[in-house]
Amino acid sequence: MSTISGKVLQKLISLGNQIYHQLIDGEYPKIELPVRSVSNIIYDSNTNTVHLGPRRSIRSCGNVRQVRAFAQLVWVASFAKEELVSKSRSCSLRDLYYHSLNDSVLRFNAQDESDRIVVELETLLGVPREHFNILPEEKSSIFGDLTIEYTTPPSHAGRRVNLLSDPDGKNIGLSIATSKFIETGAEMVIAIEKGAIFRRFIEEGVYKKLKAILIDTGGQAPRFTRLLIRRLNRELNLPVYILTDADPWGMHIARVIISGSAQAAHIPNLATPDAKWLGVWASDIKKYRLPAMKLTKVDLHRLETLERDPRYNDGIWKRELKVFKKHKLKAELEAFSKYGLTAIINKYLLRKIKEFH
Amino acid sequence: MSTISGKVLQKLISLGNQIYHQLIDGEYPKIELPVRSVSNIIYDSNTNTVHLGPRRSIRSCGNVRQVRAFAQLVWVASFAKEELVSKSRSCSLRDLYYHSLNDSVLRFNAQDESDRIVVELETLLGVPREHFNILPEEKSSIFGDLTIEYTTPPSHAGRRVNLLSDPDGKNIGLSIATSKFIETGAEMVIAIEKGAIFRRFIEEGVYKKLKAILIDTGGQAPRFTRLLIRRLNRELNLPVYILTDADPWGMHIARVIISGSAQAAHIPNLATPDAKWLGVWASDIKKYRLPAMKLTKVDLHRLETLERDPRYNDGIWKRELKVFKKHKLKAELEAFSKYGLTAIINKYLLRKIKEFH
Repeated sequence: MSTISGKVLQKLISLGNQIYHQLIDGEYPKIELPVRSVSNIIYDSNTNTVHLGPRRSIRSCGNVRQVRAFAQLVWVASFAKEELVSKSRSCSLRDLYYHSLNDSVLRFNAQDESDRIVVELETLLGVPREHFNILPEEKSSIFGDLTIEYTTPPSHAGRRVNLLSDPDGKNIGLSIATSKFIETGAEMVIAIEKGAIFRRFIEEGVYKKLKAILIDTGGQAPRFTRLLIRRLNRELNLPVYILTDADPWGMHIARVIISGSAQAAHIPNLATPDAKWLGVWASDIKKYRLPAMKLTKVDLHRLETLERDPRYNDGIWKRELKVFKKHKLKAELEAFSKYGLTAIINKYLLRKIKEFH
Repeated sequence: MSTISGKVLQKLISLGNQIYHQLIDGEYPKIELPVRSVSNIIYDSNTNTVHLGPRRSIRSCGNVRQVRAFAQLVWVASFAKEELVSKSRSCSLRDLYYHSLNDSVLRFNAQDESDRIVVELETLLGVPREHFNILPEEKSSIFGDLTIEYTTPPSHAGRRVNLLSDPDGKNIGLSIATSKFIETGAEMVIAIEKGAIFRRFIEEGVYKKLKAILIDTGGQAPRFTRLLIRRLNRELNLPVYILTDADPWGMHIARVIISGSAQAAHIPNLATPDAKWLGVWASDIKKYRLPAMKLTKVDLHRLETLERDPRYNDGIWKRELKVFKKHKLKAELEAFSKYGLTAIINKYLLRKIKEFH
């Protein structure tokens, strides 16, 4: 069992103990949950991350309107402990919902409801659901000089592999995310929004030239990927650079890796505040004479939303938002291909990384 | 360089030679292209595959309305030869479009146009664009006892790896798709529509119990994945079983792996006519008492389209379409989780595979 699974198991056991002792003592069992509403989501500009504020609510079996949700939460916690973590077994949110159908007393009305309870368990334990083995379908990949040792599944625990070995990039799944880092020759991490550019960086040996671990986030980075990026930064002291399209969506992919998302504000330790958004910046469009497209209505609306977001109040974020608004242009990573397939590396990446030093 | 790349390179060179000699002989260069319109797409019930019929059209530089498209086709072919295959380099459809922007004479009006020309080159050469290194973003994975030897990228050519080594499943990318098969202990292939079930089959050791290579198609199987499934079937003589949701969409995922798609009818050798649709069948919903949902309007409309498709005219396909129409119900693979997370294996998969023997 991985260290992560061990810790989660302990948390689930103490939750069970807490409820058990309340019952033994003749009390209605109750738990305290951090409030997840927007008013309790805080952007802390000191730590550069989004997290929940101090407000908490009580869920008690003494309140008849809360009994059902309380029982559902306990059921999900018990399922996570007995069926998933203890057995090194994983499932999807959809699976969990179907599994609940077999219990004739404790019906969820629809998957929305069971999904919501899973988020509550995340809030209560302060860990993402991936840590109690409820896994998403999103795909992202990693490639680079890093030797890992698997801790799960049991059939693979203890085996080591170097991530240079797989030229298609390794899927970032439960096994990689929970692996131990054994050894690395890398000096930085480059997270890229798109598989096509990730592949180019492998083919052109960027990982050798820059001694870089490459990550394909596959669009908005899944939480496993954000966890992994954070671990690479914290445990191995590697600087992290993020490369996205020059549009409001790409910009926000970088922002979420750096500061976390409002949606996952209830889970600490997903953010990498030290990571840098390398580009492509709005201001790079003119500077590098990139083929550009006009921002659409949806893009412009998105810009307005970001302008109201405290994470965009200063520095590069505020500046680049302004450039987007002024020129009303966007460009993709592939736009560099106008100058040849390797232009993104030779004419952009190498220069940009130097500018950060 | 892989055998596949070598063959494509030869094809590109002879295309160039053909045009060159026409020019030397004082002729307007011309080429013959199979017609891709619906009227020329044929379902051959003998071979159980979809392919193009005998109709062909001529594209000639002697026709002023065809000169531009002719030049574009030659440009794409030259780009594929010089920049991609010869250099073991890959790109996306988007990249190709941007790269064309640098040529001020030969402008594509939009990506639609360059995408269309890539499809014409596929038609002309009779190979999928993946073979001349224009790669898609879709993700699918493979796991099982198969030792492969990479042929590309050059940095990895000659290296061997067993696909049991990666418990998150290996990305099916260019490198795996073009690898040589060295050795296998597997006796079958199971292709699964969903990552969550693929992962369960790894965790529960289905690959050991059934000596199976597992493939996560990630929904509709990308062409690389269909190529790989065909190769596993042909080169290693492995039977192939396909497991999908019980709905018109899942059913068609199986049908496309078996017979090919209308969209890719111009590319031979993507289909695996011997593969079997293991389930989940419409008739399994009642038989296994699965939690089901009503078919939506969109599902019902899809059923009607399939009824007019010659691939659904007989056998199991016709029968199961009728059951869908009668009960108007659908069920997902995860529905088995009602009976426990391993029910899909112990109560369904093992029994179903026996029924096929």
